[in-house]
Parts: sequence; C-alpha cells; structure tokens
Amino acid sequence: MPASPIRKLVPFADAAKKKGITVYHLNIGQPDIETPPQALEAVRKSDFKVLEYSHSAGNESYRRKLVSYYSRNGINIDYNQIIVTTGGSEAILFGLMACLDYGDEVIIPEPFYANYNGFAVEAGIVVKTVTSSIESGFALPLAEEFEKAITPKTKAILICNPNNPTGYLYSKKELEILKDIVLRHNLYLFSDEAYREFCYTGNHYSAMRLEGVEEHVVLMDTISKRYSACGGRIGAIVTRNQSLLSTVMKFAQARLSPPTFAQILGEAAIDMPSDYFDKTKAEYLRRRDTLVRRLNAMPGVFCPNPGGAFYAIASLPIDDCDKFCQWLLESFSYNNQTLMLAPATGFYGTEGLGKKEVRLAYVINTEDIDRAMDCLEKALIAYQELFLQHLSQKQ
Amino acid sequence: MPASPIRKLVPFADAAKKKGITVYHLNIGQPDIETPPQALEAVRKSDFKVLEYSHSAGNESYRRKLVSYYSRNGINIDYNQIIVTTGGSEAILFGLMACLDYGDEVIIPEPFYANYNGFAVEAGIVVKTVTSSIESGFALPLAEEFEKAITPKTKAILICNPNNPTGYLYSKKELEILKDIVLRHNLYLFSDEAYREFCYTGNHYSAMRLEGVEEHVVLMDTISKRYSACGGRIGAIVTRNQSLLSTVMKFAQARLSPPTFAQILGEAAIDMPSDYFDKTKAEYLRRRDTLVRRLNAMPGVFCPNPGGAFYAIASLPIDDCDKFCQWLLESFSYNNQTLMLAPATGFYGTEGLGKKEVRLAYVINTEDIDRAMDCLEKALIAYQELFLQHLSQKQ
Repeated sequence: MPASPIRKLVPFADAAKKKGITVYHLNIGQPDIETPPQALEAVRKSDFKVLEYSHSAGNESYRRKLVSYYSRNGINIDYNQIIVTTGGSEAILFGLMACLDYGDEVIIPEPFYANYNGFAVEAGIVVKTVTSSIESGFALPLAEEFEKAITPKTKAILICNPNNPTGYLYSKKELEILKDIVLRHNLYLFSDEAYREFCYTGNHYSAMRLEGVEEHVVLMDTISKRYSACGGRIGAIVTRNQSLLSTVMKFAQARLSPPTFAQILGEAAIDMPSDYFDKTKAEYLRRRDTLVRRLNAMPGVFCPNPGGAFYAIASLPIDDCDKFCQWLLESFSYNNQTLMLAPATGFYGTEGLGKKEVRLAYVINTEDIDRAMDCLEKALIAYQELFLQHLSQKQ
Repeated sequence: MPASPIRKLVPFADAAKKKGITVYHLNIGQPDIETPPQALEAVRKSDFKVLEYSHSAGNESYRRKLVSYYSRNGINIDYNQIIVTTGGSEAILFGLMACLDYGDEVIIPEPFYANYNGFAVEAGIVVKTVTSSIESGFALPLAEEFEKAITPKTKAILICNPNNPTGYLYSKKELEILKDIVLRHNLYLFSDEAYREFCYTGNHYSAMRLEGVEEHVVLMDTISKRYSACGGRIGAIVTRNQSLLSTVMKFAQARLSPPTFAQILGEAAIDMPSDYFDKTKAEYLRRRDTLVRRLNAMPGVFCPNPGGAFYAIASLPIDDCDKFCQWLLESFSYNNQTLMLAPATGFYGTEGLGKKEVRLAYVINTEDIDRAMDCLEKALIAYQELFLQHLSQKQ
C-alpha cells in the first residue's frame, strides 16, 4: 500500500515552517470555506442526554431529508435506497467490498484519487487503469481503451465526477458511453460525486440520472466538501439495486452506525438558503481563474481549465515532480515563502506517468494563490538553473 | 455474512409495539446511562468555524490525554502508540487487516461478539473457534484446545475482556496462558477491552500489561460503553509494535480521519471526576444482581454470574432459542408486556451450539429488569405447555 501522495511530504513542510518559512498549502483538499454556521449550531443546540447508536443505515429523519436534497439535484430516489456512511471513504469501501470478490478488478481512469488504492487493498481487489491525458484536458478515455482493459475479472468502473485530481467534469455524453460499456459487460458503475456542487463550465450530470442502468449504478457521496464538513465523517452510498443495498447493510450493521453528531449537522445543512452554494462557487471560480491564468502565463507550464471540483493538474518544465515538490519545501524560498504541491505520480496507476505534473488544490484565498504563484514562478527558474548547472558539471 | 443476532428480530419487536405491547429490550448493548454532561457540553461549546479533517491518527491533544487515561489503568504507553479509530469497530477491522492476509485464521473463544464475523468477512480472513462452556462460567478454554485449533495459517488470537456476550472477566493467570501460546506460535494477541470499566468480581487485567510479549499485543478500545457514547464512534487501536502501527496508519490515512466532534467529547470525558465510574458500576452491579438472581430462581434456568461488562448468558428450558425469542415477540405477552432477547446461536461459530441459550444485556433499570423477568418466567411456562401440547398431538 503506497503512502499518500497528499500527505507524504508533510515532514518536509513541518521542517520548512520550523525555519520560519510560510508554506502555502496547495497540496490538500481541506477547504478553508466556513462550515454553514446554522449547521454547526444544530449540533451545538442538540439536547439529548445519551449519545446513542443511530440506525445502521443512518437516522431516518436525515435519510428522508437527503431525498429532498437529491431530488433538487435531479436524482429521484427513496430514503431506503440511501445508506449513510462514515464519510465518502466508507461509501467507497462498502461499494467495493459489496460488489467485488477477492482478486476482482475495477477500472479507474487515471490520474485518480490516490486513496482508492488504499480501499482496493482493504477490499482485496485490483485497480486497473485507463489513461486520461493532460493534452485532452483529462476527458474520458475512449471506449476502446476501456474495452481493452476489461477481463473476466472486471466487475466495475469507477469514476469521480467532477474529478479529483484533474477537476474534469464529465459530460452527459461521456456518461452515456460508460452506460453502454457497463451494460455490455454487466459491470457496476461507481460514481464518486463528492464535488457535485462545484461545477463551473456546465451543469453536473449524475450517473444516477442514467436510464436503463439502474441496477448497475452506485453513487458514493459525502458532505465533506459540499458543506466544508470534512471532520464530520458523513457520506452516503446510494443505489436502486436492492440486493446490493442488503449486502451493504450487513457491512453497515457490523460497524453499528455512522457518527451521530455530524448526521445532525448534515440534516440541518440541507435547509441552507439556496444562495449558499452560489457564494462558495463564486469564490472557488475566482480562485480557479487566478490559478489557471497564473500557471499558463509561466513559460513551459500547461494547465487545462478544470470544469469542476477545486483541483487542477499542471505540467511543469521539470524532470521529476517528486524531487521538485520536496525541493520546494527543503531548499527553496522566495521572500521567506514557499508552496506545497502534490506530486502527480501518486495519482497514476501506471509507473512512469505524471512525472512532470503536479496537483494544485485551490483551497486558499486568491491573494495567497497569487503569492504562491509568485513563488512557483521563481522556483521554476531557480530549479531549471540548478538543472542546467548540474548538466554542465556532468559534461 | 450472517445477519446480526442482536438486530435480526427487530421487525418482530416493531410489530409487537404496533399492537400496543411494551417490549423490554434486553437484546442490545445500548446503555441507558447518561453520557457525561460535561463531555457533551465540550462539544456544544466548541467554537471552531471550519469542521476540518483531524490528524489521521486522531488529534494529538486527545492522544496525549489518552496516555494519562491508560496510565491510570496500569497501561504505560506513548501517545504515538495510539491511533484513534472510528469506533471500536474500526480498531478491530484495522487490526485484522493489518496483521492477517487473505485466508489467514484468527482463533476466538466462542461464544463471541457476532460482529467479529462481519469484520472477518471484510478482511478476507477466517474465524476459528475454541469453545468456552456455560458450565465453567465461560472461563478461558484449556491451552490444549487452542493448540489443537492452531494451523500454519493461524496468525492471531482474539479475546474480549471482560467478555461480550458472556460477561466473563479473564484472570491474570488466563492471560499468562495466552501469552505463552502467542509466544510459542508467534501470533498476535488482540484484546478487545470495550468494557474495561465494568468489572465486578475483581480488577481488570489488561493484555497490554503482559510482559515480554509487547510486539504481539494489540489493544482494541472504544469510548462507546465507557462513557455511554456509542453514537460518537470513537475508539482506538493501541500497540507497542512499531511496524504494525505504520501499517495501521496507512489504513487510517486512506479513510482520512476519525470524527472530530466525538474526539472533543472523548478528550473532555477523560477529565471526569474519579467517582464517575463508581456510580455507573454500582448501577450495573445492582442490575446484574437482580437479573442473575431472578434467572437462577426460575426452574430449569442457569445463569453463571458474570464478572464484568453488562451481559449475561443464560441457558433456558427450551428447544430452540431462535424460535423462542421470535415467539416472545410474535405470540406472547403478559400484562401487555414482553421482552426481547438475543438468541445465543448467533454468538457461536460452531453450528448447533447455544440452542438453549440467550444473551441478556442489563442496560435497563432494575424495576424494568424485574418486570422483564416476570414476563420471562410466565413465558417459559407457557412455552413449555405449548411444547407438551405439541408432543401430545404428535402421539
């Protein structure tokens, strides 16, 4: 099980901070957006005397409320088609465990959210990848690529839409292509829609809206990013496949219940005024625009404009992103500042891919993004000079 | 994966309630004891604005405080030997996944906490049992029984101390026997100590106190029962084995972090005045005494006196506990009341064992226990009459 590409450089960042250097964290998807105060207030005003187990599927009142949330998003389901999970993480793990047996395969377009690797190890299954490329802005790979990757052990395709780490927003047409593939080969389609609310170039089209494929689609969801409630650990697994629901329910019963406090928060958050997401989205959009503009203005840098989420992948004029990201923390500073990025290699399943790419999470304010980009600009020049020096010493 | 013996009769209980019958719940380990108000208050007074991920191993302030809690319980460890988990459930799952590979075996004395089965399925491992008997009060089976069960695939022994479902409190001597076995065969010793605070016939002796076996012992812990905080979903996995800790840490990082709110609660609860457990323990003791006295006064009933936790297993003069427990809900009432019990068959791994036994959780007040026992007394007579009628019709 490989170390997290998002967290493995933490000791180097800590060391930089100890030297008094300001580190701009573009490495991790922890938004700085405030959790809705009304939702936090609901927890703080709760007046029960015994912190009891909830229903293993989550509080019924919360699941009924989730129905209205999904309905507003064009997803029509019944409350008993929702099982509340401990974060999106558990929704992914339960989905993999319920649908795949030991040694079975799931196909995931790469680059992909690195923790899928961890869940695959835990579920005893194998991740196969099809490659999406930075040149196409990380669009869905061609159907032929999926077909080539399918073996008798393939049981599912997993997408993240909009995508972490690429920010790519899949179109309805791309989802229809996936639908055809899963029907043709009788596969599950797992759709991780953690960033549903944050789409900038079009509307989100959920896999749950695909028709004629109801028994195949499994939605993996979370309130972590939606309401900036990462520490709550509340997600959901949603499907119209009854037999799958009863298998997931057994896993849910074994771990007894999802956390009570954050279910209260999640339930209250659904009542947020409708402009709540507008404000947050406008803020992310400003950040994205600043980040992408600054990146593409740097010589040798290319960053496709992400359609959703709050991530972007950029290719840099460097030899090795792991080395570069570590060097940024260990050996570089500009005006006593530096930045922390996630090396993209950790998001690829195919060895050798992503060596010139980094993931940037725009979860800090626009001013700080600007300062971080100033650092990156200087850093790329300094790093290239070092590289040239190194070359000339060799000759 | 079998259905939970604790929850599978829920639809029958619901139906009884719809008929206006009062159901005394002795089936489930949800204590009615109040969560410490000071600990709930700490959550309600929290004033952060963003509900962030915590450290994957849990908040450092909480882990440091847990060190003092464990030290008061004779367990000397460092804060970085603790990984905070999402309930005791996750501690058990992480332990199994980290120490056993697919197809490996863990030995558990039966009857055992039925959810271990679920975690074993999730971890892709196999549960082997050694049988503890009601006649010996569910004492640890002889070392020879463990030796017979050990195969080349055996990697661990798992005990729950004090025991759920039997209430048995393992002695220091019994733990020394386990120590010899794990050293002889190079196994892990998993110790689930969820009920550490509730011991009535002697002091608790933790597996973490065994000397010379530090690399083998893994403590699986939870605050669920300790502070009646089941819905918080906070536990811990504790071990002095460094390489094991780093494997567990990878699983912990994949699921990001344990719930934030209940970590605040857990941290505040450690500051409770020292008489907090005395009161709770005295209450459980009163209930245990009432329950065991009433049971053993019924003809044909035997219930060994449990040394800890809040469970007892009783053998009843019945043919089949699954049938009997369902009949109690479906066809019986006394003064418009009945009781819900957990059939013991679900706690045994060996087919056919426990057919005349039930588990009773004394998590309701003494008066209700008395009323429930009135029902059980009448029920056993009625059930035996039915049985005799049935026999005479057959002849």
